[in-house]
Amino acid sequence: MVPSLQARVERFNYDYADALDQRRYAEWPDFFTADACDYRVVSRENHDAGLPAPLMGCYSHGMVKDRVTMLIKGTLTYRDVNFRHYITNVRADETDAGAISASANFLVMQSDLEGNASVYMVGRYEDQMAITGDRLRLRRRLVIVDSFSIDNMLAVPL
Amino acid sequence: MVPSLQARVERFNYDYADALDQRRYAEWPDFFTADACDYRVVSRENHDAGLPAPLMGCYSHGMVKDRVTMLIKGTLTYRDVNFRHYITNVRADETDAGAISASANFLVMQSDLEGNASVYMVGRYEDQMAITGDRLRLRRRLVIVDSFSIDNMLAVPL
Amino acid sequence: MVPSLQARVERFNYDYADALDQRRYAEWPDFFTADACDYRVVSRENHDAGLPAPLMGCYSHGMVKDRVTMLIKGTLTYRDVNFRHYITNVRADETDAGAISASANFLVMQSDLEGNASVYMVGRYEDQMAITGDRLRLRRRLVIVDSFSIDNMLAVPL
Repeated sequence: MVPSLQARVERFNYDYADALDQRRYAEWPDFFTADACDYRVVSRENHDAGLPAPLMGCYSHGMVKDRVTMLIKGTLTYRDVNFRHYITNVRADETDAGAISASANFLVMQSDLEGNASVYMVGRYEDQMAITGDRLRLRRRLVIVDSFSIDNMLAVPL
Repeated sequence: MVPSLQARVERFNYDYADALDQRRYAEWPDFFTADACDYRVVSRENHDAGLPAPLMGCYSHGMVKDRVTMLIKGTLTYRDVNFRHYITNVRADETDAGAISASANFLVMQSDLEGNASVYMVGRYEDQMAITGDRLRLRRRLVIVDSFSIDNMLAVPL
Repeated sequence: MVPSLQARVERFNYDYADALDQRRYAEWPDFFTADACDYRVVSRENHDAGLPAPLMGCYSHGMVKDRVTMLIKGTLTYRDVNFRHYITNVRADETDAGAISASANFLVMQSDLEGNASVYMVGRYEDQMAITGDRLRLRRRLVIVDSFSIDNMLAVPL
């Protein structure tokens, strides 16, 4: 059975989340297309007001790779917690042949090494995707966060 | 590819959630059928005890529209927070030709304007739906809330 | 329309969650195969370190049934709260004819009788399933919990 576009985008998001939650950061760049590649985190307040300045952004595949290198080499210092992404409300539409517009809600929970869980991040993805060969990849992932008062939010990708 | 009933009900719920979370309240009545239209919020405790008295209810399309008018005109006063619905565990079954029985769990997070997120509401939907033309619509949405101690829960629809 | 494997595994998980959340514990054993039956809860920390000792485990269908008998007869004492499972990020792959490898994230919220909700458990399932007749059943459910500091976590199944 050929999976639907909806099913493919859902699986893409779940694989993406698993790579991050299991700290396989080296896989992160491969979720983006190599030519067009745009990842940015914006607050919901700014986004709704039409203010585009991101809290952080990677505007090329090289910047995405750099980000990951810092995480893998441990040159970024951040509190050692475990994350878990809950991705829901996935909606996907084909806009052109091979071009996909999608969105989803995410909730990220953090658990410290004593096993205490708390809410880490609340927000949504707004995505532009492309089908390259057999795989979906992101051309653009806009991460709109409702919660933005948390100090370590930019250490690892959302 | 024709989407499955399951996929259609999921998409319906995600569109419903998006309209509310993005404060497009004017769209809310159109998620219900015009003739039969029943929206009520009950506590899980009462529901499990067979006590039908709702915390709030709209028993006709007119009442649903009235509710929305109050929200749009701002005649209801409530704390200004952002909501986000996480709708999961969607189950849908066709009971008759064109009649659908469905349920889902929802978690609603609230984020204040300083970006602090917290749990707003925990519960489930029990729905009766109809297919009218190309669209699904609710004939009845019963909102059963596990959490009911929150003071502003009735200001906006769940 | 024949549902996809993905859709079937999702529905299985939602039915499983509903049985637990609605306290129909007597149904729990029937989600497992009778011959091979393995349910264990491990902390993420131990799991990632390759330490297999579970926080609790049932290694046969008889042990699963025993567990449930204790719950139904009320011989286990635990705080009376309502639970709700949010199961997301379901991924399913057929490994052999009739053998399925699957995973999912779960968030369990608890609500006390005053209607106060809080996070109960954060974790993921790693499952081995079999198709027996028309039904999916678990041969093995490994419950990996990020949050493990909660005192009543072992009273009811996850």
